[in-house]
Amino acid sequence: MDEPLFRRLTIIGIGLIGSSIARKVRAERLAQEIAIADRNPAALSEAAELGLGDFYSEHASEAATGADIVVSCVPVGAAGNVAQEIAPVLLPDTLVSDTGSVKASVIRQMQPLLPYPARLVPAHPIAGTENSGPSAGFADLFENRWCILTPTRETDLRALDRVAELWRGLGADIETMTAEHHDLVLAITSHLPHLIAYNIVGTADDLEEVTQSEVIKFSAGGFRDFTRLAASDPTMWRDVFLHNRDAVIEALGRFSEDLAALQRAIRWGDGDMLYETFTRTRAIRRNIIDAGQEIAAPDFGRRGPGSGSN
Amino acid sequence: MDEPLFRRLTIIGIGLIGSSIARKVRAERLAQEIAIADRNPAALSEAAELGLGDFYSEHASEAATGADIVVSCVPVGAAGNVAQEIAPVLLPDTLVSDTGSVKASVIRQMQPLLPYPARLVPAHPIAGTENSGPSAGFADLFENRWCILTPTRETDLRALDRVAELWRGLGADIETMTAEHHDLVLAITSHLPHLIAYNIVGTADDLEEVTQSEVIKFSAGGFRDFTRLAASDPTMWRDVFLHNRDAVIEALGRFSEDLAALQRAIRWGDGDMLYETFTRTRAIRRNIIDAGQEIAAPDFGRRGPGSGSN
Repeated sequence: MDEPLFRRLTIIGIGLIGSSIARKVRAERLAQEIAIADRNPAALSEAAELGLGDFYSEHASEAATGADIVVSCVPVGAAGNVAQEIAPVLLPDTLVSDTGSVKASVIRQMQPLLPYPARLVPAHPIAGTENSGPSAGFADLFENRWCILTPTRETDLRALDRVAELWRGLGADIETMTAEHHDLVLAITSHLPHLIAYNIVGTADDLEEVTQSEVIKFSAGGFRDFTRLAASDPTMWRDVFLHNRDAVIEALGRFSEDLAALQRAIRWGDGDMLYETFTRTRAIRRNIIDAGQEIAAPDFGRRGPGSGSN
Repeated sequence: MDEPLFRRLTIIGIGLIGSSIARKVRAERLAQEIAIADRNPAALSEAAELGLGDFYSEHASEAATGADIVVSCVPVGAAGNVAQEIAPVLLPDTLVSDTGSVKASVIRQMQPLLPYPARLVPAHPIAGTENSGPSAGFADLFENRWCILTPTRETDLRALDRVAELWRGLGADIETMTAEHHDLVLAITSHLPHLIAYNIVGTADDLEEVTQSEVIKFSAGGFRDFTRLAASDPTMWRDVFLHNRDAVIEALGRFSEDLAALQRAIRWGDGDMLYETFTRTRAIRRNIIDAGQEIAAPDFGRRGPGSGSN
């Protein structure tokens, strides 16, 4: 049997992402020992009941002691705290990674506090669901998804390779880019979509002429597609927007300009402009399906009550 | 065996909706005979190959001759044409219905042209997928979905009951409201979501700093959820926006106001406002799931390549 990749792997923050890592590390025997830290005692005891780790602590420093890799899976606003807590116990060879959805801010927060910044390898798996907490995780979450690594100028290559090996072991494909470029790409592929989804669901909640029960009843007309993203973890997403402010506001500016142009076309009855816009968007879904990032079945392959398969 | 509900049921326009009706009418024996008209010869011969009907014609008037119910399933911009074509062959008892996503405009277009306006029962099933054409339909499309009937002041009650019976036979639950209220409700639950989805996919297609291949690769971060609606039929949706202009522009105005407030909160770092907004939107999805209009499985229950079930 192969030697595990790591002796002691420490996960700080045992939510959807942390618990999915723990499950897959266990299933694939990527580490001899899994140590789990979470400041929230309820999450920690849930993780223990699920048997996700071998060691549990409310203190990141305790869990990180003796680790050869520490993976921070906390909301991006808490990255600095994690670095501060683990710094005293890190060994020269301990790898430090994270899974935050914003990378430049995480680096700004963590790097200055770490004794061995060459061992910092920021990472971001592009995977998730709308559910939160230790029970929401599953071992195959990262299968066939991308994990983006954003090494700093100080990151050494061996550390980068080891973290890439971890993510390949978790089922992901690896992409490497700068933190700044990551934050631009994710602003458009993830942060803006979440903001728009939260916003439209909020708008629908506030109407006077249309009741909330009507919104719910007739949501199959399209609205329900937005509610999945709008059910995502509020703390995580608050932090994403606060920590990727400039890129999100830039993406939002373009979105609003384009929307104003569509509104103008509707007002003035410019059917050709609408038709042209609605036609080119079709190809993008096809490409996403071809790239293995979406399924081809209509309606996301939803199989709800009464929805048949013929 | 029960007597079928109708002797000759005519479907004008054999796309996703028309072909789903035809399949279910056949499966449930709701009519003795199904007549199908479509101006597009390719769609018509596809329908014939699929065996969806008993009679096929490129002319609505031919298919509607001798019908006891005619259901128009064309884009809402073509409703007036359909009324004009079928008017000469309608009998005093022939029911006329439709499935358009906008109701006041359909009534304005059809009612003045019909010889027996008391037989007009506008309808809108809140169901669909992103696929188009005769092959995209399936018999269970309307199962457990709502169908909204919007009788006019002239619609007689017996006609309303008969059309309600048809839709219950197709698997739908019935709701009745005015055309004007329907158009407000759908502007928020369907038309605005589609417009936003088309817009964000278009915005992502136009960036310079982020390549289209990056958008596709990393779409699992949230963007891909929007691409389903943005892959819907462009002709249908062009017509929806042109024919429900005022309600869509009103809904859009509220959406943009709310979005500006979120943007301001991001710019000024108002985390409490963001957290509060992102929390209340969670409950709405729960309610939609409880109402049987969405499934509870994470990620829409997508089962793509490599996505496991544990």
